[in-house]
Amino acid sequence: MRDQVRVFAPATVANVACGFDVLGLAVDAPGDEVRMRRREEPGIRITQIRGDQGKLSREPTKNTAGVSVLALLKHLDSDQGMEIELSKQMPLGSGLGSSAASAVAGVVGANILLGEPLTAAELLPFALEGEKVACGVAHADNAAPALLGGFVLIRSYNPLDAIKINTPDRLYCVLFHPELEIRTEDARKILKQRITLKDAIQQWGNIAGLVAGLMQSDYDLISRSMQDVIIEPIRSLLIPKFHKIKQAALDAGALGCGISGSGPSMFALCAAENIAADVGKAVQDQFASLGVGGEVFCSKINQQGPKILDDQSS
Amino acid sequence: MRDQVRVFAPATVANVACGFDVLGLAVDAPGDEVRMRRREEPGIRITQIRGDQGKLSREPTKNTAGVSVLALLKHLDSDQGMEIELSKQMPLGSGLGSSAASAVAGVVGANILLGEPLTAAELLPFALEGEKVACGVAHADNAAPALLGGFVLIRSYNPLDAIKINTPDRLYCVLFHPELEIRTEDARKILKQRITLKDAIQQWGNIAGLVAGLMQSDYDLISRSMQDVIIEPIRSLLIPKFHKIKQAALDAGALGCGISGSGPSMFALCAAENIAADVGKAVQDQFASLGVGGEVFCSKINQQGPKILDDQSS
Repeated sequence: MRDQVRVFAPATVANVACGFDVLGLAVDAPGDEVRMRRREEPGIRITQIRGDQGKLSREPTKNTAGVSVLALLKHLDSDQGMEIELSKQMPLGSGLGSSAASAVAGVVGANILLGEPLTAAELLPFALEGEKVACGVAHADNAAPALLGGFVLIRSYNPLDAIKINTPDRLYCVLFHPELEIRTEDARKILKQRITLKDAIQQWGNIAGLVAGLMQSDYDLISRSMQDVIIEPIRSLLIPKFHKIKQAALDAGALGCGISGSGPSMFALCAAENIAADVGKAVQDQFASLGVGGEVFCSKINQQGPKILDDQSS
Repeated sequence: MRDQVRVFAPATVANVACGFDVLGLAVDAPGDEVRMRRREEPGIRITQIRGDQGKLSREPTKNTAGVSVLALLKHLDSDQGMEIELSKQMPLGSGLGSSAASAVAGVVGANILLGEPLTAAELLPFALEGEKVACGVAHADNAAPALLGGFVLIRSYNPLDAIKINTPDRLYCVLFHPELEIRTEDARKILKQRITLKDAIQQWGNIAGLVAGLMQSDYDLISRSMQDVIIEPIRSLLIPKFHKIKQAALDAGALGCGISGSGPSMFALCAAENIAADVGKAVQDQFASLGVGGEVFCSKINQQGPKILDDQSS
């Protein structure tokens, strides 16, 4: 049994254009890292958080990773004590699944320190408990891909039904994060609670097309399907210059481009590494010419989920 | 070049539970048959219609098959004359895609008599012209699977984007047609034009799950995904004893069961031929005990679309 472990959990893109609340994907980078140690005394201690500019609570019952680990320990009826060091390596409140990454890293680390009593899929409900602290409600479309890797469909929330969708090997994702903060709750509040049947039909045609395109490695179909007629027209109002930035990504060869989660980050899918590099550059140039500060990340789709960064055992 | 041809086009199930207006499937039987002959004089003549109890127009501009063939000839700028004999081999106005089958058989037959200038996929817009005569609007989720076979996703109507979804080999479909008639227009009128975002999310989770389940041959996922929270609760009101009949099908082992198209026919998917037989028998028993008259058809999913029934050439 290990005494300590370091775990990386990836950033994720929820919604993926036409899959509001039901589809998410994980990238290889950026992501969050935890270092966890078993301790003699029971109880969870968060000993350090780096990279959060002091924004996150060190109180385990108010911290995403802390709450997730506590929920897991409670489920397993364990009083094993643990220390958690959290290293945030991506922007917070940015729509890149930062809280899900910390929650997933936490439960995966704790599960290892406990001798892996649960499978990755079985850890999902506990990571979602942590997500609730950050977002008010648990939307699994960040936590599930952070935990399982790749594209994950949340077919149902009650009961929870997360399905991994096979995707082409050479699919790349570009993330771009303009420097402004949107609270997930605010981004939810502006959505209409009723939509037209006509729009809904278009959306379910597109989500079905996207899943088929991913599974058939049909890049053209992926591209045609990446259209969101329901959420993007509203949420894009919160992101200044959204349409110019999106157009720059598409002009540079992206298959499609949309809001990552509830924003303000955006994402683009690309059919090859060099295209992803071109898209990243085009967006960076666009940011510069618009006078928007921000970061751009290019990465492969992460197929494996969290990574164990060392294998030091006792 | 052939002088005459006989073509069979299959019955189809539109909507397939959670795929309202975007998904359809074709079965091996029943279906409609046309016999077509080239004639010297230009113009289309419908020389005979069997099995329609006199309900269909013999006037080419008012008949589904006639309109489809005329649209194809116009597109090809051809004045080739043709005679059409139509043999209806399934109930009309029943939700089994009867008008789509006639339209598809017509355009496929005409295309062969003209030396096959178009591919099957290219014939779809002309079959839809015929569908318009029958239904007022063109919904491609019957005509596309009748033409292409298997399960077909209509990702978009404008532009028309029909995508074939690969499905497990041993998938069977049971169709049951209670003896009552529902007009497609009426079945549309009772639908709500606005729906809740919450219901829509559930529906797009299910349609994405169904497509993933079909493509991965995951029968359990197919079964879990076959839920329609939007259309079925309303349209099932038009079908007396709907819930009892559905329960009988599920109890007999069906993966899922729902309304076929706009009803009143219903369908069930089954993972094997013997299960399909059991489901067919259970529904027939249910019909008998409820005092509902009707027909039951068991068949494999049709993977090839229309069949050419002879190969008599000149």
